[in-house]
Amino acid sequence: MRQLGIVGVGLMGGSLALAARERKLFDSIVGCGRSDESLRTALELNIIDRALRLEELIASSDLIALAAPVETIVALIPQLSAAKQSAVFTDLGSTKTAIIRAILPSIRARFVAAHPMCGTEYSGPKAAFSSLYQDRIVVLCDTEANDKDALEAVERLFGAIGMKIVKMRSQDHDRHAAFISHLPHAISYALANSVLNQEDKQSILTLAAGGFRDMSRLAKSSASMWIDIFKQNKPALISAIGAFEGELKKAEKLLNDEDWEALKAWMRSANALHDIFKSS
Amino acid sequence: MRQLGIVGVGLMGGSLALAARERKLFDSIVGCGRSDESLRTALELNIIDRALRLEELIASSDLIALAAPVETIVALIPQLSAAKQSAVFTDLGSTKTAIIRAILPSIRARFVAAHPMCGTEYSGPKAAFSSLYQDRIVVLCDTEANDKDALEAVERLFGAIGMKIVKMRSQDHDRHAAFISHLPHAISYALANSVLNQEDKQSILTLAAGGFRDMSRLAKSSASMWIDIFKQNKPALISAIGAFEGELKKAEKLLNDEDWEALKAWMRSANALHDIFKSS
Repeated sequence: MRQLGIVGVGLMGGSLALAARERKLFDSIVGCGRSDESLRTALELNIIDRALRLEELIASSDLIALAAPVETIVALIPQLSAAKQSAVFTDLGSTKTAIIRAILPSIRARFVAAHPMCGTEYSGPKAAFSSLYQDRIVVLCDTEANDKDALEAVERLFGAIGMKIVKMRSQDHDRHAAFISHLPHAISYALANSVLNQEDKQSILTLAAGGFRDMSRLAKSSASMWIDIFKQNKPALISAIGAFEGELKKAEKLLNDEDWEALKAWMRSANALHDIFKSS
Repeated sequence: MRQLGIVGVGLMGGSLALAARERKLFDSIVGCGRSDESLRTALELNIIDRALRLEELIASSDLIALAAPVETIVALIPQLSAAKQSAVFTDLGSTKTAIIRAILPSIRARFVAAHPMCGTEYSGPKAAFSSLYQDRIVVLCDTEANDKDALEAVERLFGAIGMKIVKMRSQDHDRHAAFISHLPHAISYALANSVLNQEDKQSILTLAAGGFRDMSRLAKSSASMWIDIFKQNKPALISAIGAFEGELKKAEKLLNDEDWEALKAWMRSANALHDIFKSS
């Protein structure tokens, strides 16, 4: 693979470029993006060798990674048919069913749908760093549709930057991602808003310690990126929110009923989560 | 002050002892606790100089810090009347109204009710470390009831171990603590339980990345400690849970209605939390 083309040079795309560059996986790395400013920053930070227009990037790259917000990925997929016959495509989007549905049949075998399970609450090229993907999991979905060489090329890339590969059906991915990532974002936004709507929010926040800061960290996440994810994973997210609300209602009822034994048992059962983490 | 007596040599009490010892604030530090094992560990880790029975500790100490679960604090307060006339008391409990209500009038002026806004999800003497309190906030409540010398002794102690002192009414503290600390715990327990109740919890947790780990960290917290806090701060906690549920319902409705502009605005408003953090 000679040229890596990255569409979207922000946290995810920029970090992929830096990780690939560090390991000299490509002869050149090119990028495109929505704003000239991001591209200038990406060039200055040595994230990409050259900034190209999208059409140029698609026509000249051997491996093309879509690292844009998920609605943008869906919108630009049709243009990929102008790529070389041998080109391989992947994406770094947080939803998989909607993206896979958007892939044209003519390039379906060449497009390996991926979701690297990592990120931070920051965005843009300045947020990128080369170790973002190290030792993290990447989920590849519905790979039975892929050409062997295309799948191998994408596995080689993620493997080379230190990722552990997990394969699953896109529907399972979306259901799991709703619980692991999309629901926690909804909760964090809701927690932040519930404090911000208090009259004495300033005095409340003066007291905020580590626990609250952890729980509200995701509420920093970019609204324009996350609205797309909520949109594309609506049914799974609604069902995860429902499961969570059911648990919180359970606690609220036990608290109202002053059923301390049952409420304590409910807390104890939550403690078990971390035993499962250890064993996974 | 010659002798510091610590009731409960776990994370909070043990860390207070270590911080005080490091700065040589007392001639000796003694402790008592529910289990012989904790006391043995506290002695081995050089957290306390001697283990005493509660009555001995109360009779012989100059400053007594109650670092037990909050229901235990309330239960043992009556015994403090056997202390020296000049003794000063403080507590490290996460609720303040119920504890202050339990203080006997005869020692009210000597008891400075405190809540250091720090902690970890771990408990017991092995979890203690001397920098736990460094640069954190301690809230002192209803201090107009205190003797000047008693208040100064407690302020000196917390000041010496690096804490910033904030004073407020106990009712305000409890309302704020419900949002900042007790609600986040309820949410974290509920999030953990909602995932644990899924059939494929193991495959879900395989994918868990940083965001989920942050959001579920508090779900490790000791159930026997937290049930006491929920019990004592029930009304404020119920009202904080209600505010949070209202926000989550708002998001759920916008998601169901596919009102993407309004949902994005809701996310954006949550982003503002961290600007307030920066300025506080």
